[in-house]
Amino acid sequence: MTKQIKNAEIICVGTELLLGQIINTNAAWLARSLSDLGISSYYQTVVGDNRARLLDCLELASHRSDLIVLTGGLGPTQDDITLSVAAEFCGQSLMLHEPSRDKIAGYFKKLGRHQVTDNNWKQAMMPRDATVLENNNGTAPGARLSYEANGKTTHLVLLPGPPSEMRPMFNESVKPWLANLTATRLRHLFVRMIGIGESAAETQLLDLIEQQQNPTLAPYASEGEVVFRITQFLNDDSDPDLTQEMLEQVKARLGTYVYEVGERKMPEVVKDLLTEQGQTISFAESCTAGLAAATLAEYPGASRVLTGGLVAYDNRVKNQMLGVSQMTLDHEGAVSEACAIEMATGCRDVFKTDFAVSITGIAGPEGGTAEKPVGTVWLAVASQKGTSSRKLQMGGNRERVRRVSVLNAFDLIRRQILS
Amino acid sequence: MTKQIKNAEIICVGTELLLGQIINTNAAWLARSLSDLGISSYYQTVVGDNRARLLDCLELASHRSDLIVLTGGLGPTQDDITLSVAAEFCGQSLMLHEPSRDKIAGYFKKLGRHQVTDNNWKQAMMPRDATVLENNNGTAPGARLSYEANGKTTHLVLLPGPPSEMRPMFNESVKPWLANLTATRLRHLFVRMIGIGESAAETQLLDLIEQQQNPTLAPYASEGEVVFRITQFLNDDSDPDLTQEMLEQVKARLGTYVYEVGERKMPEVVKDLLTEQGQTISFAESCTAGLAAATLAEYPGASRVLTGGLVAYDNRVKNQMLGVSQMTLDHEGAVSEACAIEMATGCRDVFKTDFAVSITGIAGPEGGTAEKPVGTVWLAVASQKGTSSRKLQMGGNRERVRRVSVLNAFDLIRRQILS
Repeated sequence: MTKQIKNAEIICVGTELLLGQIINTNAAWLARSLSDLGISSYYQTVVGDNRARLLDCLELASHRSDLIVLTGGLGPTQDDITLSVAAEFCGQSLMLHEPSRDKIAGYFKKLGRHQVTDNNWKQAMMPRDATVLENNNGTAPGARLSYEANGKTTHLVLLPGPPSEMRPMFNESVKPWLANLTATRLRHLFVRMIGIGESAAETQLLDLIEQQQNPTLAPYASEGEVVFRITQFLNDDSDPDLTQEMLEQVKARLGTYVYEVGERKMPEVVKDLLTEQGQTISFAESCTAGLAAATLAEYPGASRVLTGGLVAYDNRVKNQMLGVSQMTLDHEGAVSEACAIEMATGCRDVFKTDFAVSITGIAGPEGGTAEKPVGTVWLAVASQKGTSSRKLQMGGNRERVRRVSVLNAFDLIRRQILS
Repeated sequence: MTKQIKNAEIICVGTELLLGQIINTNAAWLARSLSDLGISSYYQTVVGDNRARLLDCLELASHRSDLIVLTGGLGPTQDDITLSVAAEFCGQSLMLHEPSRDKIAGYFKKLGRHQVTDNNWKQAMMPRDATVLENNNGTAPGARLSYEANGKTTHLVLLPGPPSEMRPMFNESVKPWLANLTATRLRHLFVRMIGIGESAAETQLLDLIEQQQNPTLAPYASEGEVVFRITQFLNDDSDPDLTQEMLEQVKARLGTYVYEVGERKMPEVVKDLLTEQGQTISFAESCTAGLAAATLAEYPGASRVLTGGLVAYDNRVKNQMLGVSQMTLDHEGAVSEACAIEMATGCRDVFKTDFAVSITGIAGPEGGTAEKPVGTVWLAVASQKGTSSRKLQMGGNRERVRRVSVLNAFDLIRRQILS
């Protein structure tokens, strides 16, 4: 087969999307992933679990796109019709795929459920000529199939709806296959920043962004972070790397905010730094209530560096368990530099770790004062090198205040480790 | 005009959506708002700022929908073409709309900007027969216009892309107009369950789901939870409520799994129960590392019930700070019922709370054994009433194991509170 996939479209299937009961994050994630592979997508469609309407969408999409990526509707229920509609569209019948059936049986056995309801086996019924994509995070396998019409091949990729199943399946089974079917070769570099807003960063890089040569520089959306993507179009994998020169230009202007050139997010960067140095960390959290420790623990291997943490929501916990003085609490308040520092040093004593970090602030929506409005947060880090602290003053809702606090706490640790 | 809008579709315009640089929250919000008005939407489309493709989308939509709601592309830049494409589609020319021009001038004056770039006046160019929709939160006005073809009227509503402008404009100017053009009214009830899989629940409710009368019952996928939606079609707001009878039928079969009829998720239900009873809670977390406490703290008012928590990642923390015996750790292991119970009772002693909950397990991807594979988690709750515990055996990745553990921990607390 020749290199032939240039453009794609994304069809997300599900009545719950159509009713607005869940937000469609799959379309954006897939569009980004396809774009990373050099494949343009010109349409995203959401359609319900309805045979006639889904067939219409496939018909339309096959006329205008080389690749159709569908998500959702692969599950065991009556509503889940994507596989059977795709098979009908490609003129194929459904057949039992035995390895998938065995995998589903194994999945339920592992869960200790011995009575598997009949509708679960439906998930192992696959279009005759499909390539089955293994699901390592759930029961519904995905599928890849193709359709020939008007001298043109349209490829269909069917993925499950839950992002925790869809994303790994795409990365494991679709990405490597697609990489062989695109003529475009791209070299990407992701530059991750903290401490500067996206529009401020963009203003400082505007001339580089607008030059639009090779490589290009463009903002890359990422929740709670500022990320820019440098993209070089290659004719051949042996083309000299032009991304580094662009990177140097970005760093010359905004280097102080850059914490990673690559894929790792801030907590993983910190985890890796601590691992390399064989050091440990503990957390004392008030307004984030365990979110920072839990974020570090998202990464496998966290147990090598994370000793423990204390959620000090109530001031008595700050006083009795972390040793924050009553005088500090009475005179400076729980949201103060003094309290943050005492929390961090107390935490380090309690857990006997190399580093300890504290977060104390007002996440809202209530509780602010004129002097300390909602969004005021103090962070501190204690280590053998001493202590450092940072004050944040944020807009946004409770969720954002807590998330941005955690990100900044990791940045403070990172700077202390590297100092 | 008679009541004539039955179905709608949503078209979101913007290259940044197509590239996955922003997540499309507008489609879900609009779909919910339309559904509340009894208007079904069968399609959502995302298309870039491209004249030909947008015209194609409008052509297709006008054949299948009474109402087309467009968002995005109303701004001042060259890329913003939605108004001019919609005008072309309806066979109308653009004219300067003077009240809009004055409003834009006033907006910039208020911001203290006296030099308004020329492209801003473009936003005041409106299709000749459009009804202009005021923007009270930005510069770009919206518009409403209609198109007659094949003896059918298609209504177009054009709204700005930023949610902070789109939502109030819809509520202020579109909703009241639509309310006079629809005949359908819906009454929804959401039934939330835990402890049963979606397919098992559906099997037990299949006859109710398949009756498809009024009200209807349908599954609604939600990660880690099972939710069913009961929907009654009303002729009149005074129609008797038929949803309760369906609810009773669901409860008669699956009542033991139902934890909420409404919008609240599990942690909020627990927060509200504790608040009503004036009781407090603390957390001792190993594999979830603070995620359960942090999840409770997502809800405003959590400080009334959440005293604190201990992230006991390292076994020394379990032993020294929670008083888990070395014998238990040596003989039963950290992932055991005995350890979970000692963690919960120790936590309750340390924080002096009414309830304490513990979570200890193997989140993976490494660390499992034949006897205790990855996905094995023990939960325990301690209170004045004694202790209760639960073993979980889950499939899925590290993230899912941790998230589902947290959800089940809240369920265990809920049952202990209500017991």
